[in-house]
Amino acid sequence: MSANPQDVLTQVAKIDATSTQAFPNSRKIYVTGSQTNIRVPMREIALSETVTSATPQINPPIAVYDSSGPYTDPDIKTDFWQGLAPIRAEWIASRQDTEILQEVSSDYGKIRRLDPELEKLRFPKSSETRRAKSGHNVSQMHYARQGIITPEMEFVAIRENQRFQLVKDDFLRQQHAGQAFGANIPNEITAEFVRDEIAKGRAIIPANINHPEIEPMIIGRNFLVKINANIGNSPTTSSIEEEVEKMIWSIHWGGDTVMDLSTGKNIHETREWIIRNSPVPIGTVPIYQALEKVDGKPEDLTWALFRDTLIEQAEQGVDYFTIHSGVRLAHVPLTAKRVTGIVSRGGSIMAKWCLAHHQESFLYTHFEDICEIMKAYDVAFSLGDGFRPGSIADANDEAQFAELETLGELTKIAWQHDVQTMIEGPGHVPMHKIHENMTKQLEVCQEAPFYTLGPLITDIAAGYDHIASSIGAAMIGWYGCAMLCYVTPKEHLGLPNKHDVREGIIAYKIAAHAADLAKGHPGAQLRDNALSKARFEFRWEDQFNLSLDPLRAIEFHDETLPKESAKTAHFCSMCGPHFCAMKITQDVRDYAEQKADLEKSLQEKSVEFKEKGSEIYIG
Amino acid sequence: MSANPQDVLTQVAKIDATSTQAFPNSRKIYVTGSQTNIRVPMREIALSETVTSATPQINPPIAVYDSSGPYTDPDIKTDFWQGLAPIRAEWIASRQDTEILQEVSSDYGKIRRLDPELEKLRFPKSSETRRAKSGHNVSQMHYARQGIITPEMEFVAIRENQRFQLVKDDFLRQQHAGQAFGANIPNEITAEFVRDEIAKGRAIIPANINHPEIEPMIIGRNFLVKINANIGNSPTTSSIEEEVEKMIWSIHWGGDTVMDLSTGKNIHETREWIIRNSPVPIGTVPIYQALEKVDGKPEDLTWALFRDTLIEQAEQGVDYFTIHSGVRLAHVPLTAKRVTGIVSRGGSIMAKWCLAHHQESFLYTHFEDICEIMKAYDVAFSLGDGFRPGSIADANDEAQFAELETLGELTKIAWQHDVQTMIEGPGHVPMHKIHENMTKQLEVCQEAPFYTLGPLITDIAAGYDHIASSIGAAMIGWYGCAMLCYVTPKEHLGLPNKHDVREGIIAYKIAAHAADLAKGHPGAQLRDNALSKARFEFRWEDQFNLSLDPLRAIEFHDETLPKESAKTAHFCSMCGPHFCAMKITQDVRDYAEQKADLEKSLQEKSVEFKEKGSEIYIG
Repeated sequence: MSANPQDVLTQVAKIDATSTQAFPNSRKIYVTGSQTNIRVPMREIALSETVTSATPQINPPIAVYDSSGPYTDPDIKTDFWQGLAPIRAEWIASRQDTEILQEVSSDYGKIRRLDPELEKLRFPKSSETRRAKSGHNVSQMHYARQGIITPEMEFVAIRENQRFQLVKDDFLRQQHAGQAFGANIPNEITAEFVRDEIAKGRAIIPANINHPEIEPMIIGRNFLVKINANIGNSPTTSSIEEEVEKMIWSIHWGGDTVMDLSTGKNIHETREWIIRNSPVPIGTVPIYQALEKVDGKPEDLTWALFRDTLIEQAEQGVDYFTIHSGVRLAHVPLTAKRVTGIVSRGGSIMAKWCLAHHQESFLYTHFEDICEIMKAYDVAFSLGDGFRPGSIADANDEAQFAELETLGELTKIAWQHDVQTMIEGPGHVPMHKIHENMTKQLEVCQEAPFYTLGPLITDIAAGYDHIASSIGAAMIGWYGCAMLCYVTPKEHLGLPNKHDVREGIIAYKIAAHAADLAKGHPGAQLRDNALSKARFEFRWEDQFNLSLDPLRAIEFHDETLPKESAKTAHFCSMCGPHFCAMKITQDVRDYAEQKADLEKSLQEKSVEFKEKGSEIYIG
Repeated sequence: MSANPQDVLTQVAKIDATSTQAFPNSRKIYVTGSQTNIRVPMREIALSETVTSATPQINPPIAVYDSSGPYTDPDIKTDFWQGLAPIRAEWIASRQDTEILQEVSSDYGKIRRLDPELEKLRFPKSSETRRAKSGHNVSQMHYARQGIITPEMEFVAIRENQRFQLVKDDFLRQQHAGQAFGANIPNEITAEFVRDEIAKGRAIIPANINHPEIEPMIIGRNFLVKINANIGNSPTTSSIEEEVEKMIWSIHWGGDTVMDLSTGKNIHETREWIIRNSPVPIGTVPIYQALEKVDGKPEDLTWALFRDTLIEQAEQGVDYFTIHSGVRLAHVPLTAKRVTGIVSRGGSIMAKWCLAHHQESFLYTHFEDICEIMKAYDVAFSLGDGFRPGSIADANDEAQFAELETLGELTKIAWQHDVQTMIEGPGHVPMHKIHENMTKQLEVCQEAPFYTLGPLITDIAAGYDHIASSIGAAMIGWYGCAMLCYVTPKEHLGLPNKHDVREGIIAYKIAAHAADLAKGHPGAQLRDNALSKARFEFRWEDQFNLSLDPLRAIEFHDETLPKESAKTAHFCSMCGPHFCAMKITQDVRDYAEQKADLEKSLQEKSVEFKEKGSEIYIG
């Protein structure tokens, strides 16, 4: 009996055309690695000629990092009911350290697969489920520590370098030296550098062996700063089709990873649709689903149930798990006098459990058991900050830092198991406390990548928290944070719609890119230089297309000057056709050139004069 | 013959009701100073009771800084055809150092007043025009240096203190100690402190004697960080009525000053309408209007024409002038090799003039003559940054810093004339160069207030430059910048509409407030604490009303949970009614309390036991 996907995903077919179309003048290119099945996608933006100077000047295309996946490649026909092509399948299989399971291992997973009631919700194509062979560890960290460079590592090395490699124009490549706060970014990212960073725990490649569809990406402070977008249904709103659409929409605008934070109905099936269609790593907070399984009663959670949930999700292909193992019984009362107590959902669930049982959290006591699961599928830890501050008043307090110390201990244990690990951070932090927070994380967690939510630098920006938090995100990214979890304008108020997701992602792309610029990431300024050159030369279309959101730029321009001709005009709406600051600058430039020519000519004449007999004037 | 205002201002009568209505649960209050005509407006936000604890707890109202003027006071009937009440008139007159002119002094002003063609455009009510009596200097700096505390100084002292004074709740008053980067903000702002800061040149009160309608405000790094909103027509779009409406709209959302950057038709008349209706200082760039007078040909500009324009505008009541006196002939060629040359309109006009005449700029050579005009009306300098960088590539370069050095020299000259002075700054600066820029300005300009446009921390955010620039603005505000000139989402693309103005202002209120928090401005965290307490206690309405944009917060909340009942519900749309992080925290709090009670009780029992004869166990 086959699924009738129309029952569930009628809307996916009508997915916003924007998500599956390349931006104007952009095309998908691939850089091939050492083997033909390593094909690293990039977006190449074609630029027009400069016509302001006497002879037209060609502007070479600019290649930029591209998270949008096969959806923007017109040569690939994507099909939501089939999922994406498993581009990593050969890499994984050829390592010969995994086995294909006859059936999924988790009890819950089995029940969901057999329930005929769920047939109409289920992703229609069944895929192989893999697990490490007994005694094997399939984590990228494990390979890295054996000195093995995996195709995943080579892939990200090419991907991180792209901007620097492809443009040879010295003018565009000029950039400010950054202030890297101890980060150590080489001029060229090699696969060996990637391997070394992963071996040291300074970077992770979230890449579950059951998520062969991903285009690998890396998270670490010696690489480009990444951003995460959250999606997920809730008991009050949204459906499977909306969540799949949000995932594709998120990566189209630049999400590097997507977290599925569903707490509503059919979490298992929703996740399957998302993973099979996602070219970026998917993260989850497994305790959310575990809580649904015990009807929302934290005190009914057990290690056995949680363990089964981890296996269930690991076998679907979740690439990283947020796990709040740092919430310890002894530290719970430290939050009692806070202005906003515990605001992390995972943190409050575990705090409630600890109090109800008056026992240490099973996420802490069973941490090594969790590591065993992580390394059998290569799921990365995102060690959750259950005591993150929910207000400026609570920032960098005893509760927050007590948990951070615990996360540092747990990082060491995870690394003993060669499990890839990153650390989650706040939250709400005033600007002057951000550097302290970042520094403390690097020290306590031995440079494991930091992954923060914002931070928001004030509490009073409801409706604009994407802005309040992108300020903190840009700063902490500069100081060394590896990934920034986006915040949408609806934060604190409601669930984001597609418009909010786009706003949140672009705000965070700005923050991440600003951090790359400030750190002096090689080539980061290339796109700024190319855009500014286009802006100065009135190449309007190029200016739009080099922007983070070309469609918004075009839309805003057309509101004021909608005519096609205005896009090639040598003036903008700020000044009008009569007077233009940039036109005057061109005159200045011409003048400086003439002046230089004049001086050169005078100098030549002077030399000539001297050669021909200036001695007649001497003595 | 009287004006028929309906001809010109039909739309003003239909002004957006939002601008003239108090926010929900807010009311205008006034704090009276040492004389009854010093009435400092504030917005008092009423809060509801806390009902989550056993006994309801009263939450005192919070008073916040209010830039919206009489428009939000239901007891004052404003009339656009009459203008606002001249609340400073008595203060100015009683100083007896000004005279009322029989007619305006500028030639252009006379022509515009007499032209019958302009009757239908002209502001209908004529007002007195004042000028300093011969030999007098009417600047606030001059008074300050004489040891005189003016009503304006007392007014701003009360205004700056408000948040700290009015709430006695220790919980709310708790705040992080800031990192002030050399700023020195006292716990209580006194009028004497204000006077001293102005005398030293570290702060200015822009307050032209011909703009008696303003509610005085202060700009300096030992005070709350301020923001400016730009309005102004252009040859391609907009009209007088739209500009007046934009001004009122701007101050409603929090603009502390407004710059009228008109370059279109009827600049003189547009400005008159704006000033007569504006309770905040108005700034202009007089060279824009001067350029219009010579049909857009910079080379035709003369000192005589510019001088007449300064007097024309000073007699209308403009409170500060952006003047690009730092653009020197010798420095112009420094911009030739930039990626984006000269992007400042004022800068490019003067560069063009210098090149055309091969002479030093008349704004530089006549600087002392300009000072004479400034002090006769108390117009403050905003020394323009004509060479501000227009791209990341050009940040902190030789051209920019050469001009800054010149501005430092000019500041000294202005101060010899007791003319209030602030310094304009960039522009586009990557994060790691912002601190250097701020530090250099403080050093070179002897701590004169800095007033920056952003800075934008990347060039690739077209359509979102309010965000890219608010990141830089927050940081430079923290480092010591006194006022932040907003950027709207339309920057680089088109002219902002009302929606864009609101977005730009709120982004900048966030940046300014974040800077106040980080500097540790006394009481700055009060509003954050009150909002976070409300958020934690599910006092939804209070959370909305304490936000910078209450209407947006309500709108976003209602999109997801529109029912009235949801606003009092103990859950939000993020988690739903079934499970709630904040509810669990309340349990934690109750538990910690019980635990503390239990321990206390055990301790008491132990003491009691010891008192009663624990000795029986000893030995």
